[in-house]
Amino acid sequence: MRSQTATMADVAREAQVSPTTAARVIHNRGYVSDENRKRVLEAVESTGYRPNLQARSLRMQRSYSLGLVLSSARENPFYTHISHAIRTAASDRGFSMLTVNHSYSPEAEVNGIKQFLEHGVDATILCHALENKNIQPLIQAGIPVIQVERHDIEQAYFVAIDPDPGMRAAVKTLADEGHRRVAFIGARATGLKDGGPGHAEQRRAEAFQQAVSLYGLDEQDCPVVLGEYFPRSPNDILPGRRLATMLLDDHRCAVTAIIAGSDILAAGILQVLYERGLKVPSDISVIGYDDSMAQFLSPALSSIAQPYLAIGDSVMAFVEEAVGQDTSSAKTRERSVSTSLVLRDSIGPAPGSF
Amino acid sequence: MRSQTATMADVAREAQVSPTTAARVIHNRGYVSDENRKRVLEAVESTGYRPNLQARSLRMQRSYSLGLVLSSARENPFYTHISHAIRTAASDRGFSMLTVNHSYSPEAEVNGIKQFLEHGVDATILCHALENKNIQPLIQAGIPVIQVERHDIEQAYFVAIDPDPGMRAAVKTLADEGHRRVAFIGARATGLKDGGPGHAEQRRAEAFQQAVSLYGLDEQDCPVVLGEYFPRSPNDILPGRRLATMLLDDHRCAVTAIIAGSDILAAGILQVLYERGLKVPSDISVIGYDDSMAQFLSPALSSIAQPYLAIGDSVMAFVEEAVGQDTSSAKTRERSVSTSLVLRDSIGPAPGSF
Repeated sequence: MRSQTATMADVAREAQVSPTTAARVIHNRGYVSDENRKRVLEAVESTGYRPNLQARSLRMQRSYSLGLVLSSARENPFYTHISHAIRTAASDRGFSMLTVNHSYSPEAEVNGIKQFLEHGVDATILCHALENKNIQPLIQAGIPVIQVERHDIEQAYFVAIDPDPGMRAAVKTLADEGHRRVAFIGARATGLKDGGPGHAEQRRAEAFQQAVSLYGLDEQDCPVVLGEYFPRSPNDILPGRRLATMLLDDHRCAVTAIIAGSDILAAGILQVLYERGLKVPSDISVIGYDDSMAQFLSPALSSIAQPYLAIGDSVMAFVEEAVGQDTSSAKTRERSVSTSLVLRDSIGPAPGSF
Repeated sequence: MRSQTATMADVAREAQVSPTTAARVIHNRGYVSDENRKRVLEAVESTGYRPNLQARSLRMQRSYSLGLVLSSARENPFYTHISHAIRTAASDRGFSMLTVNHSYSPEAEVNGIKQFLEHGVDATILCHALENKNIQPLIQAGIPVIQVERHDIEQAYFVAIDPDPGMRAAVKTLADEGHRRVAFIGARATGLKDGGPGHAEQRRAEAFQQAVSLYGLDEQDCPVVLGEYFPRSPNDILPGRRLATMLLDDHRCAVTAIIAGSDILAAGILQVLYERGLKVPSDISVIGYDDSMAQFLSPALSSIAQPYLAIGDSVMAFVEEAVGQDTSSAKTRERSVSTSLVLRDSIGPAPGSF
């Protein structure tokens, strides 16, 4: 028996169980014996039963949809990877995702949050929010908010990303190859303009300075250059170009390696090195951050990788706690995940060191 | 008067109009005078009224959500741009978007289509479907299907992308710079495994051959090399590397320029040229296709650009026709949009030609 319009009663009849048992299996709540669960699932399959999600949403006061706020992956491919990871983790757990790619327009953020409220999302995930006040309607409506990497909204759950493990591995690898003069080219902090301090970029620069000191390099020989993060439109010049030009033109800083605060900064740095005829890695080593498009660059770029899968899982653990599906674990407001170093073709021995 | 729970009746009272008039403005249907429309919109603003989208969906038999099927932008940044364009066009018209990034897993496609059916999407957009039979449940349920670039499902609306304008501009630009030996490195056709011929890749290779003949180049000197499109996982070697190595090692094909069938193929080609010490554009010119990440490469890559905005608008024109919101225009099953050439730093005179 297969029909486009099978009901839960059809499933119960086919499985030879009570409607209550069928409902328990289909909604995954309450005790059901393994044998009965198996029969109901087989009957779902054989009848072609599909839950009516709209009716189910109204009944359970849940929409099984989530909101996601980030900037556009057109300007920064990091967002491709983080949204893919979070969307996949959500989909695996039966949630669909509404996305706002604000591209730094507060108006787009406001409109997106309105859509989230209209759709009745169960929770909202902020990878990069612009203004605290735009988020407040969600908080006032009692919708759980989860922040990733930046924590500048007091009421939000927080997935912290620890830059230290990846940064330590990067600096240690360079030191082991004989590099003593290593620069960090990073981004100036871009927290919420009206929120608390949520400066992910600053944490990366601090992680660099701590690693430099940890592996015995001289701070004086390891400059930190900070500027814009990424282009505001797809056809802007890459900010890494300006920063690399500044660094290379300053002869006090004759570095043999550069760690970039993002792959997109590294892409601009590689363009300048290419134009100047400096070969990577024989003349200079380069390491990116995010591992978002490192494999496409020339040479294929070593990069400090974001733990995308772990971020997706941590976000969904908060969602399930917050919407009350998982009451087994102790409540926590913060989870931390770790970066690591992915090696490709852009690291070599310091020139003249071997 | 501002409240989280303002009703349409509150809006009517505040605007001093009848509930029918308020409903007409809010649902944008039927005649309302400009004066009354203005008062209702001001009252919506001042009361903080938000339409209850779930209730509205049930009443209007529409979910105001759409489904989008594509592969993952992690493997091919083209999908970042096309999904951004379609999502933005949808959002501008009040539709939210559910997305399936199948990453070439038919199982992921099947599960995604199931989610679309459960959510009751109003239409589904296929940028890259895997199997005709996976799409059939949508067709059977009467849900409009719109295909972009590939047209291999008979019942689908079709947004055709014309490769000729961009390809002609690319070949003409190279010919004007004195290039006589130009290679095309493209992808083998990847249509639906059980659908009609929907070979977007083949159309790009044909467009190249036609442009070669149009601008008087000798077909014998302009080889076409076809292979895999893009890596199956983020850490695979780039397919463009293998194809470029093949081309450069075949001494019958001493080309001075390469047009790639995608930016991702161009990225692999640039890696091989980098390793061999061939400088772009002084030794060899390179042009990509898609304009999906061309600005991040070294050197910044000229690329045949997909008309992303026009694709988004054409898709939504079909959606609005199909769901019956726009009955003014004559019905059409196919709309065509055109590519163009974006110039950056990777095209120069043919070596020795000036």
